[in-house]
Amino acid sequence: MAAPNCTLTLAQLLGPNVTNSGAAASFICDQFSTTTTNFSDTKFAVDTVYLLFSAYLVFSMQLGFAMLCAGSVRAKNTMNIMLTNVLDAAAGGLFYYLFGFAFAFGSPSNAFIGRHFFGLKSIPSATPTPTDYSFFLYQWAFAIAAAGITSGSIAERTQFVAYLIYSSALTGFVYPVVSHWFWSPDGWASPSRSNGNLLFGTGVIDFAGSGVVHMVGGIAGLWGALIEGPRIGRFEKTGRSVALRGHSATLVVLGTFMLWFGWYGFNPGSFTKILVPYGVGDFYGQWSAVGRTAVTTTLAGCTAALTTLFGKRILSGHWNVTDVCNGLLGGFAAITSGCSVVEPWAAVICGFVAALVLISLNKLAEKVKFDDPLEAAQLHGGCGAWGIIFTALFATKEYVNEVYGGEIGRPHGLFMGGGGKLLAAHLIQILVITGWVSITMGPLFFGLHKLKLLRISPADEMAGMDMTRHGGFAYVYHDEDESSANGVQMRRIEPRDTSPIGN
Amino acid sequence: MAAPNCTLTLAQLLGPNVTNSGAAASFICDQFSTTTTNFSDTKFAVDTVYLLFSAYLVFSMQLGFAMLCAGSVRAKNTMNIMLTNVLDAAAGGLFYYLFGFAFAFGSPSNAFIGRHFFGLKSIPSATPTPTDYSFFLYQWAFAIAAAGITSGSIAERTQFVAYLIYSSALTGFVYPVVSHWFWSPDGWASPSRSNGNLLFGTGVIDFAGSGVVHMVGGIAGLWGALIEGPRIGRFEKTGRSVALRGHSATLVVLGTFMLWFGWYGFNPGSFTKILVPYGVGDFYGQWSAVGRTAVTTTLAGCTAALTTLFGKRILSGHWNVTDVCNGLLGGFAAITSGCSVVEPWAAVICGFVAALVLISLNKLAEKVKFDDPLEAAQLHGGCGAWGIIFTALFATKEYVNEVYGGEIGRPHGLFMGGGGKLLAAHLIQILVITGWVSITMGPLFFGLHKLKLLRISPADEMAGMDMTRHGGFAYVYHDEDESSANGVQMRRIEPRDTSPIGN
Amino acid sequence: MAAPNCTLTLAQLLGPNVTNSGAAASFICDQFSTTTTNFSDTKFAVDTVYLLFSAYLVFSMQLGFAMLCAGSVRAKNTMNIMLTNVLDAAAGGLFYYLFGFAFAFGSPSNAFIGRHFFGLKSIPSATPTPTDYSFFLYQWAFAIAAAGITSGSIAERTQFVAYLIYSSALTGFVYPVVSHWFWSPDGWASPSRSNGNLLFGTGVIDFAGSGVVHMVGGIAGLWGALIEGPRIGRFEKTGRSVALRGHSATLVVLGTFMLWFGWYGFNPGSFTKILVPYGVGDFYGQWSAVGRTAVTTTLAGCTAALTTLFGKRILSGHWNVTDVCNGLLGGFAAITSGCSVVEPWAAVICGFVAALVLISLNKLAEKVKFDDPLEAAQLHGGCGAWGIIFTALFATKEYVNEVYGGEIGRPHGLFMGGGGKLLAAHLIQILVITGWVSITMGPLFFGLHKLKLLRISPADEMAGMDMTRHGGFAYVYHDEDESSANGVQMRRIEPRDTSPIGN
Repeated sequence: MAAPNCTLTLAQLLGPNVTNSGAAASFICDQFSTTTTNFSDTKFAVDTVYLLFSAYLVFSMQLGFAMLCAGSVRAKNTMNIMLTNVLDAAAGGLFYYLFGFAFAFGSPSNAFIGRHFFGLKSIPSATPTPTDYSFFLYQWAFAIAAAGITSGSIAERTQFVAYLIYSSALTGFVYPVVSHWFWSPDGWASPSRSNGNLLFGTGVIDFAGSGVVHMVGGIAGLWGALIEGPRIGRFEKTGRSVALRGHSATLVVLGTFMLWFGWYGFNPGSFTKILVPYGVGDFYGQWSAVGRTAVTTTLAGCTAALTTLFGKRILSGHWNVTDVCNGLLGGFAAITSGCSVVEPWAAVICGFVAALVLISLNKLAEKVKFDDPLEAAQLHGGCGAWGIIFTALFATKEYVNEVYGGEIGRPHGLFMGGGGKLLAAHLIQILVITGWVSITMGPLFFGLHKLKLLRISPADEMAGMDMTRHGGFAYVYHDEDESSANGVQMRRIEPRDTSPIGN
Repeated sequence: MAAPNCTLTLAQLLGPNVTNSGAAASFICDQFSTTTTNFSDTKFAVDTVYLLFSAYLVFSMQLGFAMLCAGSVRAKNTMNIMLTNVLDAAAGGLFYYLFGFAFAFGSPSNAFIGRHFFGLKSIPSATPTPTDYSFFLYQWAFAIAAAGITSGSIAERTQFVAYLIYSSALTGFVYPVVSHWFWSPDGWASPSRSNGNLLFGTGVIDFAGSGVVHMVGGIAGLWGALIEGPRIGRFEKTGRSVALRGHSATLVVLGTFMLWFGWYGFNPGSFTKILVPYGVGDFYGQWSAVGRTAVTTTLAGCTAALTTLFGKRILSGHWNVTDVCNGLLGGFAAITSGCSVVEPWAAVICGFVAALVLISLNKLAEKVKFDDPLEAAQLHGGCGAWGIIFTALFATKEYVNEVYGGEIGRPHGLFMGGGGKLLAAHLIQILVITGWVSITMGPLFFGLHKLKLLRISPADEMAGMDMTRHGGFAYVYHDEDESSANGVQMRRIEPRDTSPIGN
Repeated sequence: MAAPNCTLTLAQLLGPNVTNSGAAASFICDQFSTTTTNFSDTKFAVDTVYLLFSAYLVFSMQLGFAMLCAGSVRAKNTMNIMLTNVLDAAAGGLFYYLFGFAFAFGSPSNAFIGRHFFGLKSIPSATPTPTDYSFFLYQWAFAIAAAGITSGSIAERTQFVAYLIYSSALTGFVYPVVSHWFWSPDGWASPSRSNGNLLFGTGVIDFAGSGVVHMVGGIAGLWGALIEGPRIGRFEKTGRSVALRGHSATLVVLGTFMLWFGWYGFNPGSFTKILVPYGVGDFYGQWSAVGRTAVTTTLAGCTAALTTLFGKRILSGHWNVTDVCNGLLGGFAAITSGCSVVEPWAAVICGFVAALVLISLNKLAEKVKFDDPLEAAQLHGGCGAWGIIFTALFATKEYVNEVYGGEIGRPHGLFMGGGGKLLAAHLIQILVITGWVSITMGPLFFGLHKLKLLRISPADEMAGMDMTRHGGFAYVYHDEDESSANGVQMRRIEPRDTSPIGN
């Protein structure tokens, strides 16, 4: 509503008989103009509250990852894995600030990589485009999640310096480029390209990143784990596989619940805005779609958890809580792509199949002697890929149009009568992500391997990295000064540290 | 504000001397109409943000329950209790989606049970009634909380299959029916019945569910624990009671703090909307009541914690952190009913009495040899019942009118000059909930007992359920491959699992 | 927009030829008036959502503190330290309600201390000033954080009764007075004094409390730890210092991540309102500043963590996760003062220096045989003081004017061309806080010391406080009834408690 036009129009309508029609019109139109500005301000505030608290939730997933990883490894490597999780967030913060965000969302840019906003320089905080600080924070929380996934695959046997190198490369370059392709309005496969030239007329609908985040992290982990090989003792000479149990199921459950909690920021939060009406006057808008996304996310995870519970009961004979946790997360990883554009009943199917995918891939991994302590490649890579296909099958016409806009007749899910174009685009996505991560992270891990920087020595692996690299074990339940007095000692700890900061 | 009437009225007021009074009026009224729509959209977005993030907080209580329960049982049953907590959420998600929500809030319906929205079918997302997806998510988080309470009462001795059966029954049917009675506008005891025909002219004011959630969970737990009987070793042959200490106070504190955190979603969140002015033009509305509710909740919990600290110091001679945690939770369970309609000073009284109720009921339980590992029946049942009475005594006239609306002269708290009708209604609530849960869950537990599906064998109970049912203990602080090399072994774990997914 | 003036003005502009210019004007102006009221209501609701959820996040820091403290002490003192953390929140809730909030924000008041709103009596919930219930809850969460800091410094050797006394004094009086000085519009050093008479024409810019919260807690801890002296065994007779390792690095990491999560409520939340436009019509306002504050907070913590990682690697030879956690928290404590008024690149500098400050102060503490189990005095006191100076050096003109308003030409950071007045005011702040806390908490701790109420006996210290004061150890991984049957016993637990409530 432009104030000058309003005044002119209204003055003419009031006409010459009104004492001061120009001033009357201007008076009224000024109020309209103030109202418009107030709504604009309100929308910014509401959307920012929504985006920021969603970002905080996504950040809390890093705590979830840390606890899940810690509980899933043996006690002797707990300090190591937790340090990698803290550093994902910390190093990720600095690198994503310096260049990651620029590569991903620097605009204007070409279709392959962004090239503005390095160090958050001159981001347009005063325009309606979503490139303000809150958006940066939200995207940073996503970037560190990708790195966290990979750290699980290579846990318990990787040199810390290798970790620092691959983590920086992933957060600072490999992941940002992928997110540029699929999520930046300039990206070649974006479903909302600014120039309208969509891949197969549809672009890829990877709403919250089954591909962009989970497959990227999972494929990177796959290469890392393949090149390093299994942990000592994981597969016996006879070929028998030996489960190297994590040291605390409590931490696994704690981490899983935190991830579930955070996923509500990850999936519904990916709308980034909530005050967006879908049609005028019928009280219907993005707030409803946001709620539906939270529901589809929940249902996919719940179904996958139940499927895993009974599936594993049949296969292994007992009710296993850590398996249920992994199944749950597999359901979440799968629904992440299509959460905003499918019906709740479809989410149930998504979760059911995701659980089967995870169980099958774990069987396959055992057969080919692939060792991934957190099942990260299977879970995030495998279930993520299924999620991408699922979206191309079940995305509904109505929701695709509402969430992604554009002309009517946009391709949607194959099973919903939307044709095969979306499926074609999504198969491309799977191939392209697999290829890109393989040609970047594969050689990186291989180079580190050749330089003897990747895997720790067998002696260190037997002793545990906490003792050899991180100053001691994570737990001291029994203090040295009491050992002679009242009881046996749980485990020996390292020689006393003489630094007061070293505890 | 209906646009046509606006235009007509305004055109007449401007009159024939204005050049084009119809068009001028229409022009102005169109702006008014747009403004009205914008406000409506804004209200939906703001209320949804409020409701969704409150739902996420309530969900985080499931993590709190899991950790509280885990820490309160012996190490050998940790996997078992955590799996029940994960399944509360997962199975609850599916069952509440399929029928629970329909029984509770399916509308239109009779006064006893709802009968629409099965599988979220045709929920009216585009109307101002609170039956959108976000409301479903919020209510689901409540439903799983009730099931979580019960699992505490029957911990450490219940067959897993019995757990699956009662949990489904509670989340899918017993609890939804109760929430229909008291919270659905169609319910016979609702304080805001759509047909205006209120119980005793007041209905039951159970704002966030001291009765609907806590008593339901607690009474169900009471029957389960009674029918199963005490854990082996809990009461010696001489009659002496033996505290079977939980294995980790750290987990108890972690769980308690998470529950405290989540209770801010539970109580203040129960308004479900925040952008509701209470009077025109004086800047006063539900946002203030929401804040007050957070404050009364906090004060009741704090007072109960301090009362327990000093009370137990006198009784047992030491400062006990897990008792303080339970006292705190008892204060929360009590204030949950009246949190929105009482003054902060009354909340202090509520918490003080709640702590005494819990201490007394625990003494009583010891005397009658009732064993509830989490004190759940005493805490949620007993303090919940006290909270229902408390509300009927201390609800203020002003707040009841603001929060529940309706004509002036609505009954409120007996001690606040509001007469005895609210108390009568609330005593009915206590009786009815006790009766309903007893006639549904009592026979269910008894039937399972008769079918030998309820309690595990004494041998299994001694060995711990983790070993016999869940694939091994929750903790492996010391790895087998090191046992001979450097130290003693903390505990034996189960025979090695040959499945790679089995860890 | 006052309706009567609107009607009068508009009626005159429409003039006598309009059929009923008075009624037409009134009709139109009524709509304007409704719109204004609606915006006011919307602003209250949005700001309350923002403030309340920020308060919940700040509260979650108490969980973070509890876990950080628990993990940083030896297993035998875990119950003790966790109980102090629960009581900070609980006793703090009651005392801050009864008088703390009144001392801090009771208005109108003098420049030294507030004197209204005791027990939240007659707080003006219906006016635009920020003294509603939500504001109380937010400030309470801050008050308990200060007490939590101090408890770390005196951990593992303090009598529980001494803890109750100092904690009440700190939350109920010492801290509220400081927050009155710097944050109440009546405070003598406030940057937004209601009478406009600013200290050095600027007041102190301590946005979220590097001084008000962190230095207060840290200096109090310094005096407590100094007067108590080091823990037994911390410094050997030869002068060698011995690190008394905390018992669980997992809990340290858990606590650190929870604190990080909560800090997003602490720093960005300190705006208390988000729907505040900074200029009319350019879509720019506090929502952008809030996001920027979250970003500066993140970057300072991340940089401090990385600096500590490499700094400690050089000094101690290993990659230490608990040190990285402390470094991270030091970065947060430092940026807390200036987070809203500095550029992101400056936050990187802030974090870098904060890590060096912490490392240096820890070296110094070792040299002078000062023992603070949580490094709380060094971290919160030292890094907090650095943060205060940092703000006076790097606060930008633009942001200071936006966030604090007032005339142009307000002093800002010395290095940003803003002159030395802000630095002068901030040095005053450091001196005054150090002095005030020293003359109040110093004598309090000394008096307790003289009355033999401060430190526990050496025998109790050796045995651990959990056993002697809190009814037993925090952990029971191995149950007594199994000890003979299958394995060695991890540690002896206390004689069986005969109270059923005592577990």
